[in-house]
Amino acid sequence: MTVRPFRAQDVPGLAALLDAIEVFTAEERRVALEIIDLAAAQPDQRDYVIGVVEDGAGGLAGYACYGPTPLTDGTCDLYWMAVAPGCRRRKYGQDLIGWVEDGVRQSGGRLIVVETSSQEKYAGTRSFYARMGYEAAARIRDYYRAGDDLVIFRKSLIGEGA
Amino acid sequence: MTVRPFRAQDVPGLAALLDAIEVFTAEERRVALEIIDLAAAQPDQRDYVIGVVEDGAGGLAGYACYGPTPLTDGTCDLYWMAVAPGCRRRKYGQDLIGWVEDGVRQSGGRLIVVETSSQEKYAGTRSFYARMGYEAAARIRDYYRAGDDLVIFRKSLIGEGA
Repeated sequence: MTVRPFRAQDVPGLAALLDAIEVFTAEERRVALEIIDLAAAQPDQRDYVIGVVEDGAGGLAGYACYGPTPLTDGTCDLYWMAVAPGCRRRKYGQDLIGWVEDGVRQSGGRLIVVETSSQEKYAGTRSFYARMGYEAAARIRDYYRAGDDLVIFRKSLIGEGA
Repeated sequence: MTVRPFRAQDVPGLAALLDAIEVFTAEERRVALEIIDLAAAQPDQRDYVIGVVEDGAGGLAGYACYGPTPLTDGTCDLYWMAVAPGCRRRKYGQDLIGWVEDGVRQSGGRLIVVETSSQEKYAGTRSFYARMGYEAAARIRDYYRAGDDLVIFRKSLIGEGA
């Protein structure tokens, strides 16, 4: 397994990784980093669980951040996931998703939801989640901005009837 | 207009109001109060905008809490809304929704989303939003717990094509 839990020392590496992700806006990077900083400052918090993949050259190749969805019983949000452009096609995305799903299962979770965008630049992200067994379960028109819908994926980790 | 902006002195009245709302769980009351406490402690924050209706007897008859949805351009979440059991059928709900929509419009917003539950006890809530022009746009199965789905309502505040 290439994924290991986040440590406070990973903050600069994660900032560099976020800078390298083409699809993220400056605002998205800022919010992602805010959560990373919070996790570094409060090692005992349980709202955000972060895993990283090292790139073998002192940097980070990818990360995922998930946490329990407030007011639900057993649902987790996969808040952020990213793999550096030079490190794709190495199954790091699959490793990160597997790490997240194992962690959710171990904490008693049963459902994972992921919010993403309908934009063309997220087509690869959406097909990745579909390959990983996530169902595009809902769509909110014009959510992010006019013409940019919210797409919510879900995956049940327990057996589900039809 | 019966709705006025929240003040820090409203905290005890809002705590009493939340206690009186039958459908809320203890956890939901706790989270709702956490946001109210934060708004009282940080009068300059802009993440949560709260309006209240007085009951004419020193207490509060209802409240609504909304705010800009992070990472969106012009979308607001209506996070909480409640009217005390003894004060229903007095159009306070309609007044609160109108106050929220006016506030969203004045801050340049164009879309409001509301998350609620598929449970039978929320049937009145769902039909209220439908009457107010909100569309049940998405549903995530078993989101809150097995058998309790997330239902997301949306209302556009600008003209929308078909």
